[in-house]
Amino acid sequence: MSETTVRHFQEELEQLKARLLEMGGLAEDRVRASVEGLVDRDADVVDRVLNGDGPINQLHIEIDRRAFTLLALHQPMAVDLRMIVSAVKINTDLERVGDLAINIAEAVRRYLRHPPVKELIDIPRMAAISQAMLRDALDAYVRRDLALARAVLNEDDTLDALKTQVFRELLTYMLQNPSTIEPALDLILISRHLERIGDHATNVAEDVIFMVSAKDVRHHAGEVGA
Amino acid sequence: MSETTVRHFQEELEQLKARLLEMGGLAEDRVRASVEGLVDRDADVVDRVLNGDGPINQLHIEIDRRAFTLLALHQPMAVDLRMIVSAVKINTDLERVGDLAINIAEAVRRYLRHPPVKELIDIPRMAAISQAMLRDALDAYVRRDLALARAVLNEDDTLDALKTQVFRELLTYMLQNPSTIEPALDLILISRHLERIGDHATNVAEDVIFMVSAKDVRHHAGEVGA
Repeated sequence: MSETTVRHFQEELEQLKARLLEMGGLAEDRVRASVEGLVDRDADVVDRVLNGDGPINQLHIEIDRRAFTLLALHQPMAVDLRMIVSAVKINTDLERVGDLAINIAEAVRRYLRHPPVKELIDIPRMAAISQAMLRDALDAYVRRDLALARAVLNEDDTLDALKTQVFRELLTYMLQNPSTIEPALDLILISRHLERIGDHATNVAEDVIFMVSAKDVRHHAGEVGA
Repeated sequence: MSETTVRHFQEELEQLKARLLEMGGLAEDRVRASVEGLVDRDADVVDRVLNGDGPINQLHIEIDRRAFTLLALHQPMAVDLRMIVSAVKINTDLERVGDLAINIAEAVRRYLRHPPVKELIDIPRMAAISQAMLRDALDAYVRRDLALARAVLNEDDTLDALKTQVFRELLTYMLQNPSTIEPALDLILISRHLERIGDHATNVAEDVIFMVSAKDVRHHAGEVGA
């Protein structure tokens, strides 16, 4: 490649990364808003999440196009190739996170039709953790930061433990008072959606580890950091 | 590319497709087994699903490696490029289907500790539909068959309607008889896992449409076939 072509390629790659970060920010905002709507019992916030997936969907298509153009025009090798293919995968994960924010908002809208089942503590914690995992995983991608990507993988256990705790606690409510069954079911679903957001952050972190080290950790998560 | 290189490339691409089909077959088998374990109340079948994810995980890694090698060594263009990047995405979807089979098996194992809540009709139907969607989506990929890919997208509504029906029916059981709450919750989770398998089949079908027509239908599903 000529020097101009190389510079153009690097600029386009930076643009791709910038768009991924932007999409990650949007996805994170939507998750935050959906859980804020739950905690504050604010139906307007929830409706904005339900009707606001336009920008993220546009970015999803744009990022895929940019990645394909980079692959087709520049035929990159080695780490650049892995960076771009990872971008395609991460793009998919972020779009699913956006969808999960909608799933959460739908459950919240149903939940708000009932009196509160209980004070919510673990679900906002799960939301905060899953958002932080997503942010860290994307930072790890942009900075090619292996240590940060590995830290994300460890956080997933915390999320999983909280999900189990939420489930057990709500089951007790349901068994003791059948009028809580419907709203408690929605809280259980919300906790599972949040856990899946953590799973998507984990996918991103695994892609980063693969990208940086060309080492496939995905089915040996327990060995990471060993 | 020389004629030999072209032939080698086409052979490698055929190998990649064959591996994807093999992985799809494994994923489908595991979904089928998990639901058979539920219907037949057969804990042995369920345990085999829980302990049998080795082959699918191996294939997941192998397919990614093959796709990267093809991209790096042959620098394919246009439809071949889209075919290979689609393979990477489809590979991810199939691996998740394998994980969902495990999620189903875990819920079945818990479910089998209780007496049956009801005769199961809709869940086996959901399983059959999601498996057929997966098979059709992969066939559409291999044959670059747009019509078949579009047919898969339409099936997703059927699955969604069944999921809602399962939820409503089980809610009635839970409200009438609190002893069914725990097992009914697991049936609800199973129906959601099956719906997500349909979502993965939908993703594959959307990738096929993008691959064949270079047209992004993903956020305009309603316009497909228009």
